[in-house]
Amino acid sequence: MTTNNQPTPRTQVKRLPERGAYDHETIYSILDQAFLCHVGFVADGQPFVIPTGYGRAEDTLYIHGSTASRMLRSLEKSIPVCVTVTLLDGLVLARSAFHHSMNYRSVVILGSATVVAEREEKLRALRAVSEQIIPGRWDYVRQPSEQELKATIVLALPLAEASAKIRTGPPHDEAEDYALEIWAGVLPLHTVVEEPATDPELRVAVPCPAHVRSYLAPGRR
Amino acid sequence: MTTNNQPTPRTQVKRLPERGAYDHETIYSILDQAFLCHVGFVADGQPFVIPTGYGRAEDTLYIHGSTASRMLRSLEKSIPVCVTVTLLDGLVLARSAFHHSMNYRSVVILGSATVVAEREEKLRALRAVSEQIIPGRWDYVRQPSEQELKATIVLALPLAEASAKIRTGPPHDEAEDYALEIWAGVLPLHTVVEEPATDPELRVAVPCPAHVRSYLAPGRR
Repeated sequence: MTTNNQPTPRTQVKRLPERGAYDHETIYSILDQAFLCHVGFVADGQPFVIPTGYGRAEDTLYIHGSTASRMLRSLEKSIPVCVTVTLLDGLVLARSAFHHSMNYRSVVILGSATVVAEREEKLRALRAVSEQIIPGRWDYVRQPSEQELKATIVLALPLAEASAKIRTGPPHDEAEDYALEIWAGVLPLHTVVEEPATDPELRVAVPCPAHVRSYLAPGRR
Repeated sequence: MTTNNQPTPRTQVKRLPERGAYDHETIYSILDQAFLCHVGFVADGQPFVIPTGYGRAEDTLYIHGSTASRMLRSLEKSIPVCVTVTLLDGLVLARSAFHHSMNYRSVVILGSATVVAEREEKLRALRAVSEQIIPGRWDYVRQPSEQELKATIVLALPLAEASAKIRTGPPHDEAEDYALEIWAGVLPLHTVVEEPATDPELRVAVPCPAHVRSYLAPGRR
C-alpha cells in the first residue's frame, strides 16, 4: 500500500488549498523530521486526542502503545484514527490582526490502526520508534525482555491516506496596509536541545555516548 | 462554569495515574505557556485532528476559527470535541529500551465548542488568542474590519472537564539495570525564537517593536 499522490475527498485541503501537498516525498520528509504525533480516536462517541511518539518505516507509521489504556482499548478494535504531526516553524506577524498566521509543516493521516502481533515485526517497529526519536539509542540500550515485549502494544497505521499542509514565508497583507507604519515579519521558532542531564543515579562511570551528544543535528527538530 | 478539581470518568488519567492532575492552577499554567493546540472532532464517523492557535480567558478556551472548513462545519453544530495541548520538555533516556519516555506537560480538554456570535465577545476572544500567541501584538496592529470580523469564526470551549498529565525528572529503570554500563539521563528540549525576519515588503522605516524583540521571555515557550 502506498500513499496516494492524489488527495481523497477526506484529505483534500479545503481551506487555502495552495498549502496542500499529497506526494510521498513531502509527507515523508515532514514525518521524518518529527517524532511526536497527536492521535485522534473516538470512544463512546467522544473524540480523544493523545500525544505520543511514533516511527515511520517505509509506508507504515508505528505508534508506541504505552499510552492511555483508553486509546489502546479503542485502537485494538481497528477503529478509524487520525494521526497529526505538526512542526511549528514561526509566527507570521502581519500588519493587520486578521492576516496573522503561523509557518508550519503538518501531516494528517487517516486510517485504521491495527495491533502488531508478530514478534519480529513488533521488534522492528519498536526499533523504528526509538530510532525516530533518537537515532543510535536502540542498539546501545538493554533490549526488551519477553515480558516487556508482551507489556508493550505497538500499532501500525498504513500511510495510505495522508496529506501535508505547509506555510512558509512572510505575511500576506491587504494591499493598502503595506503603507502602514507597522512592523511586519516572521519570528522563526525551532526546538533546541540543552546539555544532557545525566541521571543522578548513574552508578557506573559511563561517558555520555555520541548518539546523545550529537542529538539534534542540523535539520532535525 | 469552572474546571473540576476532581477528574470525571472521562478525564481520569488511567495509565500511570500519579502523573495526572486536575486542579485549575496546574491546568491553567500549562495552557498559559503554550498557544498551539490539537483539536479533535468527528465528521462522518471519522476523527480529525487539526493544529490551531488558541487563547485562554478565565475558564474559557477560545479557538481561532480560520482553520479547515471541515472543522468549522463540525464544530458549529456544537458536537463533542477534544482539545489537547502538549509541551515537550525532554527525552528520557533509560538503560532499557522499555523504560524510555518523554518529559512533558499536557492538557486534555473535553467538551462542546460553540460559536461566539456576539461582536464584543468575539473581539475579546480574538484579542485573547492574539495575546496568547504574542503578547502586545493586538494593540499594535490594524484592528479587524467588520468584514474581517464576519469572515472569522471564533469558538468557545468551557474549561469544565479537563485533566493535566505531567512527567518530569530522570528515567526510572529496573533495579538490576542500574549496574549496567549504559549512560542514562534526560535530553532537555525547548523552543527558541531566532532573530525576527523583517518582511522584505516592509516599505516604511519601522523599527522592530519591543513586543517582538522581547518575545520568548524566560519561562515561555
